[in-house]
Amino acid sequence: MIKINDKRFLNNFFGLAKIGWSEAGLNRPSYSPAYAEGRDYVKKKMEDAGMKVRVDTIGNIYGRYGGTDPTRKTILVGSHLDSVPNGGIYDGALGVLGGIEALQSLHEKFGSLSAPIEVVGFIAEEASLFGGTFGSRAITGLAPLNQPEEAFKWSGLTCDDLVNARIKIDDYGAYLELHIEQGPVLERKNLEIGIPTGIVSIIRYKITMNGQQNHAGTTPMSERKNAMCPASELLTRWFAWADERLVKKDDFVYNTGVFILDPNSPAVVPGKASFVMELRSLSDKVGDELVAKLHEMVNASEYAAYSPTIEKIVNKAPVALHENIIATIEQAVKRCGYAYQRMPSGASHDAVAMAHFMPTGMIFVKSHDGISHNRAEFTTDEDMLKGVQVLTETVALLAE
Amino acid sequence: MIKINDKRFLNNFFGLAKIGWSEAGLNRPSYSPAYAEGRDYVKKKMEDAGMKVRVDTIGNIYGRYGGTDPTRKTILVGSHLDSVPNGGIYDGALGVLGGIEALQSLHEKFGSLSAPIEVVGFIAEEASLFGGTFGSRAITGLAPLNQPEEAFKWSGLTCDDLVNARIKIDDYGAYLELHIEQGPVLERKNLEIGIPTGIVSIIRYKITMNGQQNHAGTTPMSERKNAMCPASELLTRWFAWADERLVKKDDFVYNTGVFILDPNSPAVVPGKASFVMELRSLSDKVGDELVAKLHEMVNASEYAAYSPTIEKIVNKAPVALHENIIATIEQAVKRCGYAYQRMPSGASHDAVAMAHFMPTGMIFVKSHDGISHNRAEFTTDEDMLKGVQVLTETVALLAE
Repeated sequence: MIKINDKRFLNNFFGLAKIGWSEAGLNRPSYSPAYAEGRDYVKKKMEDAGMKVRVDTIGNIYGRYGGTDPTRKTILVGSHLDSVPNGGIYDGALGVLGGIEALQSLHEKFGSLSAPIEVVGFIAEEASLFGGTFGSRAITGLAPLNQPEEAFKWSGLTCDDLVNARIKIDDYGAYLELHIEQGPVLERKNLEIGIPTGIVSIIRYKITMNGQQNHAGTTPMSERKNAMCPASELLTRWFAWADERLVKKDDFVYNTGVFILDPNSPAVVPGKASFVMELRSLSDKVGDELVAKLHEMVNASEYAAYSPTIEKIVNKAPVALHENIIATIEQAVKRCGYAYQRMPSGASHDAVAMAHFMPTGMIFVKSHDGISHNRAEFTTDEDMLKGVQVLTETVALLAE
Repeated sequence: MIKINDKRFLNNFFGLAKIGWSEAGLNRPSYSPAYAEGRDYVKKKMEDAGMKVRVDTIGNIYGRYGGTDPTRKTILVGSHLDSVPNGGIYDGALGVLGGIEALQSLHEKFGSLSAPIEVVGFIAEEASLFGGTFGSRAITGLAPLNQPEEAFKWSGLTCDDLVNARIKIDDYGAYLELHIEQGPVLERKNLEIGIPTGIVSIIRYKITMNGQQNHAGTTPMSERKNAMCPASELLTRWFAWADERLVKKDDFVYNTGVFILDPNSPAVVPGKASFVMELRSLSDKVGDELVAKLHEMVNASEYAAYSPTIEKIVNKAPVALHENIIATIEQAVKRCGYAYQRMPSGASHDAVAMAHFMPTGMIFVKSHDGISHNRAEFTTDEDMLKGVQVLTETVALLAE
């Protein structure tokens, strides 16, 4: 096995983990001061490793070692540097700092490899305003230029910035992403490594009920149109239906993670209630069934008085990862002697966008109790190092 | 009738209405730049009218004409200068600018009256962080000094500011507040003036369901604790129960105007769902019944897994207004020849706090369609002027 520097990796990792951390968890949203500080930290680590560093027009960071063979395509490894609100320290960061350690170890052992190798820290993977996985979709041209105005306002970006961030895809030969599983499967089965074979679809709908904003003391009850009423009733119906369907077939997940009342003031009858329904599955057919049911419920006659609207805001198809890369990772895992399995990924990743344009693979390590997007997210140092080791071996095999 | 200056009042009124106005409605929250601009405008108008002006330590503004008889107590008139989010231009502003016009007209006609007269523009009547009617509760010592930390942070105030804003209550002999009805009764009955006899109680509870924050893709559905589920189910139950009770007896109103998911991100199973239930009635007994039912529902065994909490955050008792003041307003309305009725107030007002310490009365004018706390809030110029006229006559009668 190629020797990686355990102590250096862990120092780098926990140094970044402090940036944006508080009692509430990790708050390192893209385009925030904490994000800039985190990326500056990563830049320093890349420079210390002797990489050539650049930050693109939308805020992705790249660190590069040139190869000795100019005809070879670049091997790209990485993940994202942003966090969800009150998130954990492992999601994303492991893949970026693990990538730096893998490439730095290879560079130290072999000097320049035949192929150029590059590590990327993507921005805005968790940025729901941009629909998620923004950094990777933007560099591959998958992010539409007509992003929501509020997203541009929030980030300070322009259309030109999106255009100018695109990479020359032909220059790249592979993408590898090391990531925590974010689910409980590896831990329960006592496996050290997971090799994803595909990534679920993500469909998001925004549903809005339109009531009438009014004074909460003086408007007679019989004349109120409180938008909270149909919204909570609809959600209650959905929960009942979906949970019953899940008993029959556990082939999808849903989430209602966003709910917004407008104007959200205790003495005002709310004029608007909006929520986001997220649906994930590995099958287009299942997705279609769920979407049809959601439309049926929203358009039920009893809500007509609230002029409900339903709008598709995210639509990411399921993605298969590349068999050659999967096989190479498998070979690397076997070299290391770790217990592993092939498995689907229930989470979306920057690997989705990359997989459309180049051979792409992922490496999962254990998440304790399957908890993620939460301050309690936890992976042992040992498990992280096993992931970095597999990543290092995989890059070595690909660069041979 | 005492002549008021219609044109001057309307100019003043619509000048203030522009400050904080946009397509979304009026946004002039306390302690905001728009609020400061609005109060500066009012200050200028008071100074133009020859009043002696002061702003107290929490941001209330007073304009004063001294009286000729130093033994007489001050007659105070006014209302508030802040708005709810996306509110209308009449709520509050009418009582302040109507008060200036009333006192200025009396001063122009009679010179100094026997009693000192003063107009007040209260701050933070709509500020839910402070529990509402903050300016009037603070000057009378009713606002607790242990306000929520976030309220202090938001406003920049300190405990000392609250203490130093207290007025010498013995110096004041009466409080009068002109306000839009904010309900549809006067318009439906084709009445020009309403004279409130009492103001409803306001009770607010904050209810929180505690789920487990987690990743919305990788956590198996059977292991999720989505806080949105019990919250929407509980609300749906409440709506069904309350609406059935209202069919039997229409003696209360409720509102669910605040709902907050935490962390409110589409890809995160929400760990917390909180909402505010507001209950209003003229009867303590009805209030007790509603509160008991709410506790029963929240503490139902099926929600135990979500460790629900229920916390009383506002508790304002119903208040009776002063019979002598009501009778004086009635006399003034009759002088003007307007159609009127005595009625309860379903909205809370700064008059509630004042009524605990001095004879207090209110004057209502029509709200078109009863719409308030909404950009569409509307009262005709004619109806506003009728209110200002009645206010002017009432002050004249009290000052005689």
